[in-house]
Amino acid sequence: MTEATPDTRSPKPDLAIGVDIGGTSTKLGVVDLSKGKILRETSFTTPNSTALDMAALLARHINVLIHQYPDITSIGIGVPGAMNADRTLVQNPPNFPKWEVEPLTEYVKAAVPISELVVMDNDAKVAALAEQRFGAAKNEQFFLLATLGTGVGGAIIADGKIFRGAFGGAGEFGHIMIDYNGPESNSGIRGCLEAYLGQKYLSAQTVEKLKASKKASSLRSFLPAGNLEPKDIYGAAQNGDDFAKEVLAEAGMILGIGFASVATLLDIRLFLVTGGVAQAGDLLLAPAREALRKNVLAHQRDSVEIRPAKFVTSAGMIGAALLTEAHAAEQPEVVF
Amino acid sequence: MTEATPDTRSPKPDLAIGVDIGGTSTKLGVVDLSKGKILRETSFTTPNSTALDMAALLARHINVLIHQYPDITSIGIGVPGAMNADRTLVQNPPNFPKWEVEPLTEYVKAAVPISELVVMDNDAKVAALAEQRFGAAKNEQFFLLATLGTGVGGAIIADGKIFRGAFGGAGEFGHIMIDYNGPESNSGIRGCLEAYLGQKYLSAQTVEKLKASKKASSLRSFLPAGNLEPKDIYGAAQNGDDFAKEVLAEAGMILGIGFASVATLLDIRLFLVTGGVAQAGDLLLAPAREALRKNVLAHQRDSVEIRPAKFVTSAGMIGAALLTEAHAAEQPEVVF
Repeated sequence: MTEATPDTRSPKPDLAIGVDIGGTSTKLGVVDLSKGKILRETSFTTPNSTALDMAALLARHINVLIHQYPDITSIGIGVPGAMNADRTLVQNPPNFPKWEVEPLTEYVKAAVPISELVVMDNDAKVAALAEQRFGAAKNEQFFLLATLGTGVGGAIIADGKIFRGAFGGAGEFGHIMIDYNGPESNSGIRGCLEAYLGQKYLSAQTVEKLKASKKASSLRSFLPAGNLEPKDIYGAAQNGDDFAKEVLAEAGMILGIGFASVATLLDIRLFLVTGGVAQAGDLLLAPAREALRKNVLAHQRDSVEIRPAKFVTSAGMIGAALLTEAHAAEQPEVVF
Repeated sequence: MTEATPDTRSPKPDLAIGVDIGGTSTKLGVVDLSKGKILRETSFTTPNSTALDMAALLARHINVLIHQYPDITSIGIGVPGAMNADRTLVQNPPNFPKWEVEPLTEYVKAAVPISELVVMDNDAKVAALAEQRFGAAKNEQFFLLATLGTGVGGAIIADGKIFRGAFGGAGEFGHIMIDYNGPESNSGIRGCLEAYLGQKYLSAQTVEKLKASKKASSLRSFLPAGNLEPKDIYGAAQNGDDFAKEVLAEAGMILGIGFASVATLLDIRLFLVTGGVAQAGDLLLAPAREALRKNVLAHQRDSVEIRPAKFVTSAGMIGAALLTEAHAAEQPEVVF
């Protein structure tokens, strides 16, 4: 980025509050934007409330932080859901059944003393910003971040910026095709990547495989209650369970194939992985790397790369705070 | 685009020569850039020669055209092959076995009186430029053009410009995954889209299906010689052959699934189709539309669209001529 002419309407802030709204807990951090450091952090259990009530709760926490850090001039919010094209409305986030189409930033603006720069974005895009500025993709101009959680999402950074596509929804890595005859998924897209790697799909398919298999596995103890989770799979794999290792190797292969489609289509060669399922580390990523190399074009083979994300729990806050800078940079220049 | 300050180094040309180097024939057109009209056209059979000999042959034809149109100040060349990142070198185009890594534009510059603006790009990207400026995607800012020929290629237009990716090779639509257990392909990527829709794959798979089927079909007359081509399939389908219709319906479904992966990943909702296999028209595109709608996210379903490209034989010349403008626009601004 080039030096901008001073602009008194939206000065570049040194401190910003980053809010990470999660399905389970919501975290707020005062972030030093020049260093990516969280100076102060607070959190609360995400209530099953309306968006308006959620905004009021957020505002109470924000006002405490502003009282402690009066220099704060901007707030960024990461939300697990889709946005409209100009990111002023959250659209029916699946984890929040009482939210509809919600102008969350307007609600927050109305309840805090900062009214100018309160911005929001999808959580995967926010995490990509954090990784690009301070994390595993520092200074990289092109990469895809895959979020392997309950669902499988993602964000594309191209030419150093979030790639949004024609209508703002780009990055849905979980819905690209792996096998059009493959398993069903909630989205209705049979055989998409999420139908293999989304937490409940991975768990359910592992239970089915285990039932059909005669192999010994410590995972059999989960069969009666039927509550097998991805962390149990990689826990068993880390303890040397061969069946669990095979499950992760197959999941990794699917992940690598998905990355390969992105590599051929976009000539992006760097992939970051984050989220719960990513905790399996090289048990997942080594087979993913093998499948990625195998399914790209010959001239790409030696330069494709998969890295674990650097930030595990703080990417949401740091990235949300960085939104305030990205937002300022994306505004059209006005020349007087 | 905004009005640029006059720049005497690269004046915006009104006329340019567009060269379309094809595997079989090479066409040159004098193109009126403001209207996308070809004012004069010439062509020759593409020789099985070195790149240097090819450049000499091109230069002879170019010099005749410049003699007839002395106002011409720039030349654009579309090449069926990959380029280095700054498009100064053609890299081992598969149809030209005697070419290696070749500075084709330098060869041409040395042999014509225009030395300033001789530029080249991949043929799919060139065709996308023609469609965007004067064709089926006129004024569209985001779309993917798929070229269904011997191979399956493509080009992505994002924010009104060719999307090139990190290393310049973006757009390889033919190599995204359809079914990782699917048929083998030359690229080594098993089950990629080209392994279904590339001409020889489509032909070979149709022959296999026909042998395994008991259905009556006019295509059986091709079995002894084994020379079935896509045009024979859609010829038969147009004459009401049910087997041939099924083949095209399945090919269309695969195409639609490929577009759906692009739609979910990039939130691009417009798709153009060109090339030999695309001549099947709605016999291919109707099932493609159905599969596309079925395999995108719910909120995208009613806005995804597939259009046949407008230009059949002239996109290469018109788009190559437009390269000269796109090239000028992509140069960094120099302020004195």
